Amino acid sequence: MVTGALETHGDHLPLGTDIINPAYLAEKVARKTKALMLPPIPFGDSWSFDVFKGTVSLRPETLLMVYRDVMTAVLRQGITFIVALNGHGPNAAILQQAAQAATEGSAGAIIIVNWWLDVAKEARAKVLQTPEGHAAEDETSEVLAVRPDLVDLTAARKARVRTEFRIVSASRREALLPRGMYGEPETATAEKGKTIMQAAEDELVRLVQQLENGKLPIAD
Amino acid sequence: MVTGALETHGDHLPLGTDIINPAYLAEKVARKTKALMLPPIPFGDSWSFDVFKGTVSLRPETLLMVYRDVMTAVLRQGITFIVALNGHGPNAAILQQAAQAATEGSAGAIIIVNWWLDVAKEARAKVLQTPEGHAAEDETSEVLAVRPDLVDLTAARKARVRTEFRIVSASRREALLPRGMYGEPETATAEKGKTIMQAAEDELVRLVQQLENGKLPIAD
Amino acid sequence: MVTGALETHGDHLPLGTDIINPAYLAEKVARKTKALMLPPIPFGDSWSFDVFKGTVSLRPETLLMVYRDVMTAVLRQGITFIVALNGHGPNAAILQQAAQAATEGSAGAIIIVNWWLDVAKEARAKVLQTPEGHAAEDETSEVLAVRPDLVDLTAARKARVRTEFRIVSASRREALLPRGMYGEPETATAEKGKTIMQAAEDELVRLVQQLENGKLPIAD
Amino acid sequence: MVTGALETHGDHLPLGTDIINPAYLAEKVARKTKALMLPPIPFGDSWSFDVFKGTVSLRPETLLMVYRDVMTAVLRQGITFIVALNGHGPNAAILQQAAQAATEGSAGAIIIVNWWLDVAKEARAKVLQTPEGHAAEDETSEVLAVRPDLVDLTAARKARVRTEFRIVSASRREALLPRGMYGEPETATAEKGKTIMQAAEDELVRLVQQLENGKLPIAD
Amino acid sequence: MVTGALETHGDHLPLGTDIINPAYLAEKVARKTKALMLPPIPFGDSWSFDVFKGTVSLRPETLLMVYRDVMTAVLRQGITFIVALNGHGPNAAILQQAAQAATEGSAGAIIIVNWWLDVAKEARAKVLQTPEGHAAEDETSEVLAVRPDLVDLTAARKARVRTEFRIVSASRREALLPRGMYGEPETATAEKGKTIMQAAEDELVRLVQQLENGKLPIAD
Amino acid sequence: MVTGALETHGDHLPLGTDIINPAYLAEKVARKTKALMLPPIPFGDSWSFDVFKGTVSLRPETLLMVYRDVMTAVLRQGITFIVALNGHGPNAAILQQAAQAATEGSAGAIIIVNWWLDVAKEARAKVLQTPEGHAAEDETSEVLAVRPDLVDLTAARKARVRTEFRIVSASRREALLPRGMYGEPETATAEKGKTIMQAAEDELVRLVQQLENGKLPIAD
Repeated sequence: MVTGALETHGDHLPLGTDIINPAYLAEKVARKTKALMLPPIPFGDSWSFDVFKGTVSLRPETLLMVYRDVMTAVLRQGITFIVALNGHGPNAAILQQAAQAATEGSAGAIIIVNWWLDVAKEARAKVLQTPEGHAAEDETSEVLAVRPDLVDLTAARKARVRTEFRIVSASRREALLPRGMYGEPETATAEKGKTIMQAAEDELVRLVQQLENGKLPIAD
Repeated sequence: MVTGALETHGDHLPLGTDIINPAYLAEKVARKTKALMLPPIPFGDSWSFDVFKGTVSLRPETLLMVYRDVMTAVLRQGITFIVALNGHGPNAAILQQAAQAATEGSAGAIIIVNWWLDVAKEARAKVLQTPEGHAAEDETSEVLAVRPDLVDLTAARKARVRTEFRIVSASRREALLPRGMYGEPETATAEKGKTIMQAAEDELVRLVQQLENGKLPIAD
Repeated sequence: MVTGALETHGDHLPLGTDIINPAYLAEKVARKTKALMLPPIPFGDSWSFDVFKGTVSLRPETLLMVYRDVMTAVLRQGITFIVALNGHGPNAAILQQAAQAATEGSAGAIIIVNWWLDVAKEARAKVLQTPEGHAAEDETSEVLAVRPDLVDLTAARKARVRTEFRIVSASRREALLPRGMYGEPETATAEKGKTIMQAAEDELVRLVQQLENGKLPIAD
Repeated sequence: MVTGALETHGDHLPLGTDIINPAYLAEKVARKTKALMLPPIPFGDSWSFDVFKGTVSLRPETLLMVYRDVMTAVLRQGITFIVALNGHGPNAAILQQAAQAATEGSAGAIIIVNWWLDVAKEARAKVLQTPEGHAAEDETSEVLAVRPDLVDLTAARKARVRTEFRIVSASRREALLPRGMYGEPETATAEKGKTIMQAAEDELVRLVQQLENGKLPIAD
Repeated sequence: MVTGALETHGDHLPLGTDIINPAYLAEKVARKTKALMLPPIPFGDSWSFDVFKGTVSLRPETLLMVYRDVMTAVLRQGITFIVALNGHGPNAAILQQAAQAATEGSAGAIIIVNWWLDVAKEARAKVLQTPEGHAAEDETSEVLAVRPDLVDLTAARKARVRTEFRIVSASRREALLPRGMYGEPETATAEKGKTIMQAAEDELVRLVQQLENGKLPIAD
Repeated sequence: MVTGALETHGDHLPLGTDIINPAYLAEKVARKTKALMLPPIPFGDSWSFDVFKGTVSLRPETLLMVYRDVMTAVLRQGITFIVALNGHGPNAAILQQAAQAATEGSAGAIIIVNWWLDVAKEARAKVLQTPEGHAAEDETSEVLAVRPDLVDLTAARKARVRTEFRIVSASRREALLPRGMYGEPETATAEKGKTIMQAAEDELVRLVQQLENGKLPIAD
């Protein structure tokens, strides 16, 4: 199960950045394991970006129903473990909520992997020079590695509005995320992206193989 | 906007048949026109098939919210005409319901094209020897034309339970659609499929070009 | 279970046309069989007409809940077969959706009969001179047969906007269905209506008697 | 707008008691005034009775949507005052909730008349010998006046379980309302019913005429 | 379970009047019995007042979900009887609706006590000089007894618009409830309030002790 | 606006831990500033704990409606800034979702403060000896500072199941959070709690004063 978003990623990255990366990983992992891969769900909760051109956002209540229906259908088929490989921040809590309802009364377990947070941590620490963000050095490098044809590095310019607390305000979306950006993409390279993607792939393969052996990722 | 389903199509066709075909057409059409293409929505209302292996179905109320959110987001971007290229029967009414709500208070129009019904009619009449159905001669020919690697013609066997009226009964789904089939796929050929797809593509290009000229498909 | 709508039918037919006809049939059939008849549900999804005077429309999501609650209640009483005798187009898919949910986990079956499509086909072919429609020759003849006091034939005038594809557009409803009409009512007669209604009644009696014998309308 | 229920009324009254009476009144009143009458909504929230045979209940959330859609549609047509003539207790609060949402942002007003409580008070006090209830002396008399063919007085037997507080308990519905009854129907007569119905009709005509003069029923 | 509202109560009573009183009673009763007390739910359906300053209202559909979730959670813990001690009129029907759904399939029972109606009736009859209302003599006396620091008796002035029928109209809320008032608070005293609260407390203790003995408040 | 939960916190902390702490802070802050304080919402999304005794959880969809209704009501009163002081993890994303919808079309902004994460960071780093958790050293110290009467330190015992990824599984809730615990509470002291609470209070006062001056917490 792959979840992402269709939303503005500055002027230099494709709208589909948040689904291109995890879908790429999922395909790689599925090929190396016996896992079945569901078709990726291309839309997510992109409220913060839907004042920007090209963003198509689902409301959280819509997304909750989609994830729940999909998880329920899969668990009903007798599959016990679902890995939700997520590529977009606001989807994470909705995946959790959906998984709560979907596993109710079943023996199934759903493992939520926010791929940009939960895997390739060391690789990221090693190669990245600036903090992670939205259309920042990390995402730009990753798309450069996976779909370089969709990147226009000449348009990549830094933008980062720092807040002390989380501010939610419909009328201030452009002000808080200028040009649909949060980060410093200029230093991105395909090389960095490849390092991250490879590490992510390796760690995910390990997770899935562990699940195929009936073992959840619980530390002893 | 491309809508389909992930559901059993007999033993010889891929689960994604209903999305593979319209997605193929949409890509062709988008390339020949200036139309923007949204990422296909891979799941549909497949209730009739969700007792069969591999089907992942969204409830109608879920699908209604998804279509409505997507249409609303697109219309809000200033786009006036949306073609909903649909590949799956039960989605059609839900697209209509979503379009009703999404165009309320806007100048937009949504054109729903049930591609297996509304285009390539003459081509179908010419090449098909048996009635259309689900995983029948028509769909099998089409996938043979588009993704032959996903078809196992040796497994294609006829099944068709005829009813005088529409019967809806959860406990009779296997009885009404044996092996997730409705039709006679044995006579399918890639050639027939190509003829249908080409005609469909041509007619859709004409529709989109007409819309690009600001004209709705209203007969004079 | 009888479902219809309260909506504009040109200047010559009553708002209740879509419920008057099936309710008339249901009463006739109930009297000739042992079937129980539920009180008709007078409102339907009349979005396309609710810019016209007198239309009272329920949203699809409302109608879905109504049909589902009614079906669920009836099935819970131990009744196995429900015939949904429907008089209004957009209700059909919603009846299907409701029946999917209502029969889940039960042994019941719901037979959806769109009476203007599924019965009296031969009778219609024989007597009608113009294509069927909304407030067209067919419906006008039928109400002339059943409730002539509610028809004003002098106000019946042709209107029919032809479209190549289904167009849904809130701001174009008057343009697409001028005067809430689609068809040519001038040639309607009570005689034609009687022929249709009698054939419909006969076929429905046959269906209900078959169900009373525990047999679903499945062809051998 | 007429609202009622389809639910058990002891062994002597028809299921439709709660809609038969207000629909009768509404027709009378509509004939004597210029008011338009909507088709009655035959189902209500009959949860307390839906363990009894013949009851078809809508869930409160369904009913809320139905009432809201109907009220909204009517107010949108430019009608300012709607009288909701209600024949069933649990509907009352739902009508209020629907009216809150439907009048939001409009100049309209909805007058809710629980006819068994709000009109014919004096007439009731004069003719009734036992307290009002469900299928009790009052309702039995009223149906005897309006539809005597649907009453079986020989089956009318008293039942009344008194509680100090409102108890809601799915598993105790039969215990709290034995035989779907609450009251003493044996002393009912058509004469009493006629007196009540006539008074109710007169008071409702007065209300509607007052509204037709643009005046709400506010005491000076 | 204690339910109330946060809404305007004239110029002399606190917004929390409808929750302060029942919460005070619940604490008293819980201390004298073995009953567990849930934290009070401070918001209610205050639509009629939400044009007045300080009112925070939940929509009926929201409140229904809250009550249902809370009741379901408590019943699932193995608790059989829940007393819903309600301090606000429009909440009553919603509590009933929630209790219907929550007790479905369980052995539990929910007793709804609208404390201003169902207890201390005799005490009220004895001490009150004017009819009960909203921020009227009764409520003002009660808050004077419980939280005198929150009352400004100098601001208490009579207001009461009488209607013959229930009128629901968003644009007439200020007209129907001037200054968020309905009643005559001038004659309120702490003494009257104490008498009412003491009687209410005694009767509620009796109810809860009866429930602790496994007996519902059903008259013999 | 204060949000929390009613859920198991090991054997040594009160069910209301997640609401007691932020409510304490909110009262302190309200007294030192001109901010208005809403009554705390005592229930949250406690799905992970609702197999443990005493937990009363609201579903995410319920909570979303509650937060949205409250935020909408407050913004409609002309208040521009709302601080949502949250004491419970899973509420955070729901507050965000609610704030998205509530600020749509308004000039308002909602600042979400997850108090255990966003304030008193330095104080926590200074005094805590073990990682933060659920009923761990941090929360135990805080309740010892605020409501020592509700803590039973003798029952405090360590429990912490570590997972590599987020696992959601209804049937594994006890296994993943043994005794409703996650952390090492034995080293908790009131002194540590006081240091944290004081720092939190100071930082929140600063935030609110900044907002009272019309300035959002955006770094320059």
